[in-house]
Amino acid sequence: MGCNSKDAELAADVLLKADLRGIDSHGVARLIGYVRLWDKKRINTKPEIKIIHETPSTATVDGDGGLGLVVAPFAMKIAIKKAEECGSGWVAVKNSNHFGIAGYHALMAVEKEMIGMAMTNASPLVTPTFSKERMLGTNPICYTFPAGEYPPIVIDMATSTAANGKLEVAERKNLAIPSGWVQDAKGNPSVNAAELKAGGSLLPLGGDRDHGSHKGFALSSAVDIFSAVLSGANYGPWVPPFVPYLDLVNDLPGEGIGHFVGAWRIDGFRPIADYKKNIDQWIHRFKHASKIDDSQGVVIPGEPEYKAELINRVKGIPLVKSVQNDLDELAQRFNLETL
Amino acid sequence: MGCNSKDAELAADVLLKADLRGIDSHGVARLIGYVRLWDKKRINTKPEIKIIHETPSTATVDGDGGLGLVVAPFAMKIAIKKAEECGSGWVAVKNSNHFGIAGYHALMAVEKEMIGMAMTNASPLVTPTFSKERMLGTNPICYTFPAGEYPPIVIDMATSTAANGKLEVAERKNLAIPSGWVQDAKGNPSVNAAELKAGGSLLPLGGDRDHGSHKGFALSSAVDIFSAVLSGANYGPWVPPFVPYLDLVNDLPGEGIGHFVGAWRIDGFRPIADYKKNIDQWIHRFKHASKIDDSQGVVIPGEPEYKAELINRVKGIPLVKSVQNDLDELAQRFNLETL
Repeated sequence: MGCNSKDAELAADVLLKADLRGIDSHGVARLIGYVRLWDKKRINTKPEIKIIHETPSTATVDGDGGLGLVVAPFAMKIAIKKAEECGSGWVAVKNSNHFGIAGYHALMAVEKEMIGMAMTNASPLVTPTFSKERMLGTNPICYTFPAGEYPPIVIDMATSTAANGKLEVAERKNLAIPSGWVQDAKGNPSVNAAELKAGGSLLPLGGDRDHGSHKGFALSSAVDIFSAVLSGANYGPWVPPFVPYLDLVNDLPGEGIGHFVGAWRIDGFRPIADYKKNIDQWIHRFKHASKIDDSQGVVIPGEPEYKAELINRVKGIPLVKSVQNDLDELAQRFNLETL
Repeated sequence: MGCNSKDAELAADVLLKADLRGIDSHGVARLIGYVRLWDKKRINTKPEIKIIHETPSTATVDGDGGLGLVVAPFAMKIAIKKAEECGSGWVAVKNSNHFGIAGYHALMAVEKEMIGMAMTNASPLVTPTFSKERMLGTNPICYTFPAGEYPPIVIDMATSTAANGKLEVAERKNLAIPSGWVQDAKGNPSVNAAELKAGGSLLPLGGDRDHGSHKGFALSSAVDIFSAVLSGANYGPWVPPFVPYLDLVNDLPGEGIGHFVGAWRIDGFRPIADYKKNIDQWIHRFKHASKIDDSQGVVIPGEPEYKAELINRVKGIPLVKSVQNDLDELAQRFNLETL
């Protein structure tokens, strides 16, 4: 596509990390989507990514229309450098594209004994509580906490009840989905995953007002504001969509999509050894909280993905047939070896 | 109780602000609870609150067992000062107590054209997904965003499906509560608010695994770790409880309860005028998102509390009889005028 080899390797690393961690929806399965955006001239493969505003602990980055897979790590490196210098670092990003899994970026901080944060806005598919209009993305929030003897805690969650990927699985298998995941185009509750592509929408975490969907809406709003209003990117219904069934709208208020990343140095608050002793005790205690059902204990955030990576690094990454076909199609187009 | 008059006025201001904003559960209704903790020698009314660790943009504060209502504003002032100096400021707090509404503290940043953040851990009443053990508080997260022509956006939410106060209302009125709010002591779903005081527990936002309770659990965990593991306070099931029906446990790993507060300067990212233009457009657009039901539009976070304050400042704060009685009882005990 014209990326230099350093950028291409970084983008591949972000996608592979998702597959290694078992987050198939955000791995190489998405490669064809990035190529589709490039075909539509919506990705600049030779971006001049730069800082356009800064203070000792904050900055805004213009991604120049580059791949989010490349722009977000650039921003995270700045956040980490600022944290090294003054305890914490925060970077708002405009004019970017889909950045893959938030966890990749936030985990960069953990390697430096810092707490990491990453969020991004995304294709408008989620309604505010009481609305039938698609106004927000699945807008993920990610926090990563280093631990001592345990793997890091990785919270990496869409602020909708369910992420897109889960609906696709249900739709493929023709299964009903739980209530509270989607509503139809008129705003009626639905258990049919196909409603999303028929003008319906995803629901914010909580599902409905009685179950706290105003909180999911609020969290998703915070992600949108941090990522785009603070950076100068597009927000709400103006976010340039990644999914093929939504079109780009006119009169955009900003540039591209937005991210917000940050890092706090742990020793900006207390000695690392004290923190590690306590975080390990926290993890140990929560893992041993009394179970409702003996067969299923408490799951520490990030634990399933950590275990998947241990297995996938040995056994390789399983790919479904349709993704293999997509990759082969791309390989042929770009004169590369097929799988 | 022995507070100096400056601290007493500040604490009263925090409680009154909750009542003004219509958050009755966290206003003067709680005064008797703070007195109860003081009776148990769990509140130091003459604390020496101090910074025990810092970098240019971060600090840890020891609250010396003081009222959270006084300790948290002290911490927030430091966060704001650090943000003035280097773009953002972050303060972890240990050895504190219940801090009232998170919104009070985070709104201090808005007065300085900053985005505010406040969180705290709290009495263990919430279970992790798959557990029947009370391990976490309702652990609120609060973000405040200044706006231009509109009132500020205030997200101030418990990370459980429902906050304690709502259960108390249902219990008083003998009403069934929605599914997903509580479970009984064995971990069975329940619609009976009284289960909470009978060994049951509140559920994390989402309610159950199908509806995303692992996300509510993850958010609540993040609040606990930021507030206590990062500061050296107590976490998880060791958090010293505020509610009278839970006892203090032994072998505490830290000191008091913990908070985490912060502020980002908006002009650390872009000119304030640009931000204000966009945040006003954001609010306007979301307020006008198409409705499911003509009678109910989208509610911007903080809007109901803003409206309540406008009314209450004119008409006064309505108090239910039981709160009036509590206040009169306290007035008699401390030789003050009754209501």
